[in-house]
Amino acid sequence: SRHYRIAVIPGDGIGKEVVPEGLRALEAVSKRFGCTFAFDQFAFASCDYFLEHGVMMPDDWKDQIGGHDAIFFGAVGWPESVPDHVSLWGSLIQFRREFDQYVNLRPVKLMPGVPSPLAGREPGDIDFYVVRENTEGEYSSIGGRIFPGTEREVVVQETVMTRVGVDRILKFAFELAQRREKKHLTSATKSNGIAITMPYWDERVEDMARAYPDVRWDKYHIDILTAHFVQHPDWFDVVVASNLFGDILSDLGPACAGTIGIAPAANINPERDFPSLFEPVHGSAPDIAGQGIANPVGQIWSAALMLDHLGERQAASAIVAAIETVLAQPRLRTRDLGGPLGTVDCGAAIAQAL
Amino acid sequence: SRHYRIAVIPGDGIGKEVVPEGLRALEAVSKRFGCTFAFDQFAFASCDYFLEHGVMMPDDWKDQIGGHDAIFFGAVGWPESVPDHVSLWGSLIQFRREFDQYVNLRPVKLMPGVPSPLAGREPGDIDFYVVRENTEGEYSSIGGRIFPGTEREVVVQETVMTRVGVDRILKFAFELAQRREKKHLTSATKSNGIAITMPYWDERVEDMARAYPDVRWDKYHIDILTAHFVQHPDWFDVVVASNLFGDILSDLGPACAGTIGIAPAANINPERDFPSLFEPVHGSAPDIAGQGIANPVGQIWSAALMLDHLGERQAASAIVAAIETVLAQPRLRTRDLGGPLGTVDCGAAIAQAL
Ligand SMILES: CC(C)[C@H](C(=O)O)[C@@H](O)C(=O)O
Ligand SMILES: CC(C)[C@H](C(=O)O)[C@@H](O)C(=O)O
Repeated sequence: SRHYRIAVIPGDGIGKEVVPEGLRALEAVSKRFGCTFAFDQFAFASCDYFLEHGVMMPDDWKDQIGGHDAIFFGAVGWPESVPDHVSLWGSLIQFRREFDQYVNLRPVKLMPGVPSPLAGREPGDIDFYVVRENTEGEYSSIGGRIFPGTEREVVVQETVMTRVGVDRILKFAFELAQRREKKHLTSATKSNGIAITMPYWDERVEDMARAYPDVRWDKYHIDILTAHFVQHPDWFDVVVASNLFGDILSDLGPACAGTIGIAPAANINPERDFPSLFEPVHGSAPDIAGQGIANPVGQIWSAALMLDHLGERQAASAIVAAIETVLAQPRLRTRDLGGPLGTVDCGAAIAQAL
Repeated sequence: SRHYRIAVIPGDGIGKEVVPEGLRALEAVSKRFGCTFAFDQFAFASCDYFLEHGVMMPDDWKDQIGGHDAIFFGAVGWPESVPDHVSLWGSLIQFRREFDQYVNLRPVKLMPGVPSPLAGREPGDIDFYVVRENTEGEYSSIGGRIFPGTEREVVVQETVMTRVGVDRILKFAFELAQRREKKHLTSATKSNGIAITMPYWDERVEDMARAYPDVRWDKYHIDILTAHFVQHPDWFDVVVASNLFGDILSDLGPACAGTIGIAPAANINPERDFPSLFEPVHGSAPDIAGQGIANPVGQIWSAALMLDHLGERQAASAIVAAIETVLAQPRLRTRDLGGPLGTVDCGAAIAQAL
């Protein structure tokens, strides 16, 4: 059926302002392409909820949203009242882990009308995906402190990689590369410095590559890879990375493509045992929240990733095309891109273009 | 006394080609500023040495070079014959750790004649230091594998931070910031994701900052910090980071300033209990080794960092000025910068300018 139940979680700050624009775009494609949506709004996974209830989410959060076809998420975090590691580990990181959203997929694409900080780059020059492992690796909660407050103090934290965890993300990345025109995969490593887990990552890449003989692959240490993102963004097609390295590359990539302010992210459980989650890369942006000036493009682009995941590929492409149409017109851009519009008017322009 | 005993280790690949140009610059300043050098050459810490002896360094390496005033290092690594983790952990990482060179200091400076990949940036716009912790943190050798070769395989690696290790690098960075005009320190963190060691790092920064009330400081998560390097390189003055984050930022920074091909690095033991080590950021570059075309600027700039460390500040500034003079002239540049010269002629031009 082409009816989808979407759990909508605006979260904090500008999340509450841009999510409605994402929904507006979804309603517009619904009319045009004949799919339908039921949007269920949830107030949890926000710092407001935390301040009222002392926890980021109710005990039964999994029952409440686990049956939905997808989660459409704004942004979470309000460090003035709740420390980031509390708000994020109590919500976003929970979703990723408990719903086994082990793929974090982020397109890096230079859009028309968005000036790149890189000299001489045009739309078309930068167009690749970062595929980030999203559940294990460097983001473990194993570790602790000994001799606190003394000169002998030592703090340790484990990085944990599992065969299952590494292989499944590599498989996803190789399959994505195989479907793309360039069929090129780049692996981010640091096996010359992080000398236990990273050589293991390299081994698994080499092994997995054998199953995809039509995919050309290479690897770079993360230090020089960040340099190549700046100097040769045209080298990349699909970049696969551990949780931490993927986190870094998927902010750096969008920055090279102009701004992280418009970049989208998909947190995917490919087996569809659990709902996947779609969110803009930007955070809750306390500095501009409440002013109606946030750029809604990241949220709307996330809606396109969600449609793609739901199998509504035409609708997904239509949203990306509408974003490109609007961004190409200076008078339809938001202020961060030098235009005159606020959040709602820019969202309306994109819906109009649909 | 102004006589210095320097242990010279060319290492592998282009290390052997650029080190002589570094020595030539040192001889030129020696004449001009009246300091003198004894250069002792060592063949170990190279893959050639490994192929002959089965180890990267002799047992008594510490005795052989531990009494020198500094180590002038080229580059190590020849992955075709020796895996990087063997050659690097058997040499460079040993030096850093056994000689307690806990500061890795890397200037990031846009030089005349070097085109930045960033749009509209001019010399003067990018001029900061990355101060990297160089002995502990993410580069630990604690960890291992269980259930190898099976579906249950798990690989773990510890990140280890000590109070002593963190505080001393922060102290160095705050003191450097205090000596600079802008007096601005930026700390690289990821306390929202790496939720045990990184909140500890943040705590120590906050504590240390109290002792330097005249230093303005801020912190960014490493993901957005890499984005800011690209979008706002003018925001930075002194950036302090853990071993891994510093490794990344000190390749990304020089890339934003044009190329890592000319960047220098100092591995410093500030207490002078052991010799410090000076090396270019670039590696042994097997792809261009043996052709006489490597750019010697990184090695020569490293000589300037060495002179600075030895207290020869005038000589150090003279070398940086000579590099700037030569780079400003298209006909004196090497091929990587669009000029006509090879390694030796470019090195001679810089010596000439001295
Ligand atoms: C070669 C490698 C082990 C080394 C490091 O990661 O420290 C290098 O990248 C550096 O920055 O000096
Ligand atoms: C907020 C933070 C915990 C998160 C992460 O590091 O995963 C964010 O940077 C992201 O990329 O979604």
